[in-house]
Amino acid sequence: MDIQLTIAGRRDLTGQLYRQLRTAIVDGRLPARERLPSTRDLARQLGVSRKTPLEAYERLIAEGFLISHAGDGTYVAEGLAPAPVSTRARSVASPKAAAVWKRVPEALSMPKPGTQLTYDYLGGVTDKALFRGDVWRRCINHALRVQARGRGMYHDPGGEQELRLAIARYVGFNRGVTCNWQDVVATQGAQQALDLAARVMVNPGDTVAVEEPGYPPVRSALLALGARVVPVRVDNEGLVVSALPDHARLVYVTPSHQFPLGMPMSLERRIALLEWASARGALIVEDDYDGEFRFEGRPVESLRSLDRSGVVAYVGTFSKTIFPELRMGYVIPPESLATDFLKAKQINDWHGNSLTQAALARFMLDGDFGKHLRRMHRYYAERREALLGHLEGELSRWLEPIAPVAGIHLAAMLRKGLSEDELIAKARIESIGLYGISRFYAGRRARQGIIFGYGDISVAAIHASMSRLKSVLASLSL
Amino acid sequence: MDIQLTIAGRRDLTGQLYRQLRTAIVDGRLPARERLPSTRDLARQLGVSRKTPLEAYERLIAEGFLISHAGDGTYVAEGLAPAPVSTRARSVASPKAAAVWKRVPEALSMPKPGTQLTYDYLGGVTDKALFRGDVWRRCINHALRVQARGRGMYHDPGGEQELRLAIARYVGFNRGVTCNWQDVVATQGAQQALDLAARVMVNPGDTVAVEEPGYPPVRSALLALGARVVPVRVDNEGLVVSALPDHARLVYVTPSHQFPLGMPMSLERRIALLEWASARGALIVEDDYDGEFRFEGRPVESLRSLDRSGVVAYVGTFSKTIFPELRMGYVIPPESLATDFLKAKQINDWHGNSLTQAALARFMLDGDFGKHLRRMHRYYAERREALLGHLEGELSRWLEPIAPVAGIHLAAMLRKGLSEDELIAKARIESIGLYGISRFYAGRRARQGIIFGYGDISVAAIHASMSRLKSVLASLSL
Repeated sequence: MDIQLTIAGRRDLTGQLYRQLRTAIVDGRLPARERLPSTRDLARQLGVSRKTPLEAYERLIAEGFLISHAGDGTYVAEGLAPAPVSTRARSVASPKAAAVWKRVPEALSMPKPGTQLTYDYLGGVTDKALFRGDVWRRCINHALRVQARGRGMYHDPGGEQELRLAIARYVGFNRGVTCNWQDVVATQGAQQALDLAARVMVNPGDTVAVEEPGYPPVRSALLALGARVVPVRVDNEGLVVSALPDHARLVYVTPSHQFPLGMPMSLERRIALLEWASARGALIVEDDYDGEFRFEGRPVESLRSLDRSGVVAYVGTFSKTIFPELRMGYVIPPESLATDFLKAKQINDWHGNSLTQAALARFMLDGDFGKHLRRMHRYYAERREALLGHLEGELSRWLEPIAPVAGIHLAAMLRKGLSEDELIAKARIESIGLYGISRFYAGRRARQGIIFGYGDISVAAIHASMSRLKSVLASLSL
Repeated sequence: MDIQLTIAGRRDLTGQLYRQLRTAIVDGRLPARERLPSTRDLARQLGVSRKTPLEAYERLIAEGFLISHAGDGTYVAEGLAPAPVSTRARSVASPKAAAVWKRVPEALSMPKPGTQLTYDYLGGVTDKALFRGDVWRRCINHALRVQARGRGMYHDPGGEQELRLAIARYVGFNRGVTCNWQDVVATQGAQQALDLAARVMVNPGDTVAVEEPGYPPVRSALLALGARVVPVRVDNEGLVVSALPDHARLVYVTPSHQFPLGMPMSLERRIALLEWASARGALIVEDDYDGEFRFEGRPVESLRSLDRSGVVAYVGTFSKTIFPELRMGYVIPPESLATDFLKAKQINDWHGNSLTQAALARFMLDGDFGKHLRRMHRYYAERREALLGHLEGELSRWLEPIAPVAGIHLAAMLRKGLSEDELIAKARIESIGLYGISRFYAGRRARQGIIFGYGDISVAAIHASMSRLKSVLASLSL
């Protein structure tokens, strides 16, 4: 036997020997029909008790790697090793992913949180210190007690009934979305809801439309399904419906608070979009990702509440109202697609996290979610006002904010001659984290600007950072 | 104004009026340029204070449904209503799902648990009474404390680092799968892991292979991607590798414990399958769904541990070791696909449930998972032995059990002349829940038999039900 065997230390000697022999057999270094040394010889050679090779051989015999001929020693079994390396090198191929994945960008990740930044306007984050962790803990512990009962088994793909009920009530009361609890599909965040919509609608090669600028993850989800994704420009009334590609099967919109620019879609555009979709049997995916926090005037209610033809899938999330790593969202598909959404959900992950779903249902039905929203609304209103005060005041020479009627971020365009990259880099030196708008354009970097997320920055920090930012802006080449 | 307005009760009078007017405008019953009655007249007509119509009008004006001409009353805005019904009826179309969904079966649901059954052999369920709920509660509460810190933000698509570390150690020690924590993708149960593998590999129209009989949800996931799914028969050594379609891009196998029949895949077949895949760059999806519970002899280690070419995606789950509604599983893709698995995971749901992931990491790293497995192993070994004793003893006239070396279910074939449907129906009358094998065949119902799940039935219940079952079998027409 022409292989090197080594035993180290005093632990798991049998295992060490077993693994070395097995690897040698599988790699072809110990060829078929090779006779192994006797256990007595091998024990002596390795300086171990005979028990060690005996047990290793027994295990390899039991597994079929070795064959024992009574009275004639132990042999390597046949047909286990791969073909000799010379022919093998030609024929081994690694699996390659399906063609669509080349089109899907690798880094959808959020900008790394600037732990070392004094002021950070990162969007899509929330302040957990303002969340009633004690109330939530009670809800989770309630859900644990409920979960401990009964058999361990798969649940309904649509989610826990209590949560679907709580969501149906909530959207009915707050967003004018009338539905039964059976219409609600609880998802792992809005991302899964968007993916379900895409999967249900898209045939490979289908044309779909997204807002430009818009939300990159939805674009990736559509690309991964082989869709032809057409970015459609937005103006100050939201999506330009007349610019939609004629044969689109799906249109993704953020009518309450356009992502990332922040303006709401006008009522005329809403009606026009509904008409456009119902004439074609296209699906409108309405992503109402932070419409809970509204600040001015009466909100126009959701597209879904205006929909008389059953063309809107309404998507909501708790990522902005609670926190993103909760991974809770929902979709209310139109009736014609309800069954297929449930099929797709079951294929994605069978059903969501029952524990968090049950806890969230309790949190909502007990009224704690409503209380939390009202509290957060006050915080966000103050932050928005502080931020707008600066942007529309002493910073208006450089920045042109788009005052949002809703949400937890606002966009400010850079006035002519300023460079987004330069501003972001110089602000970072002053320990201010700013994030550009241009990365939300799929096509040409049409406009430059900054997204100010105020989900996790205090009013005091806003004031302090804005005076620093003024110095940064004043130092920039115009 | 020619519409019917009604106010009921004393609550939300403004809202009632607002919604009726808005609906009438959107439906076209209140046409563009129609003049509305004065608020004074409307208040009188409805028997409410003037405040009610005043507020409703103001809201509709703010939202753009109505236009107020100073000194000249209030009018319906233009361009809001859909086209007249006559032309509309022709053009309205509901969204239709993509073509693949017609091929995906609707009901993947588990058989409804027979709450009224005295004895139930439903597979894929576990007994939560044997799970240390108190220990788990501690882990969850630990995770809640960790989660309360820091900012609310999106996490790594691969999952919580601690959990990936715990899983990497676990599979290294128990299943011979050597990997780094970065190679592990934590998923929402094995279902999501299987879906990710399918999404990453399948181009529409690609040929893929599954075991026959086999696991229906994986078949659905592949059909939903437009794959041509070829069922390949299994014999007593597992998948018949020589029967694989030549151009398959993906092969799904359950080598530890064939689902549903229960035999392990022989070593020769494992080697042959690895050779077959590496010659083609095909992906082997190894679903090791209940390999934790092994009863006889030394197990053959996983396919992944024999893989020298990087062609195996190893899938594991906590559904059978803890409970299915935990929704925790994982996949260890081959290196060539690692990036695409993470892309696909982020598209599916961005990342999994952080709370449960952190709790499970604690449960594993503290050694509680290992303790739980050892306890459960004793229970399952007793149940398996009790069950096999009856099936191989007094019931062997009718049933031919396939003794499993692993898992929490076993299959028993019906001897010639017996009908699966008839047996199941008659057993149900005796309050015994049995579940047939034939529904796991994609093609012709090749064999008839029963799956006995013993995840949630006690030894005493096994003994009691088996003597009842004998009477049922004796009464059947042969």
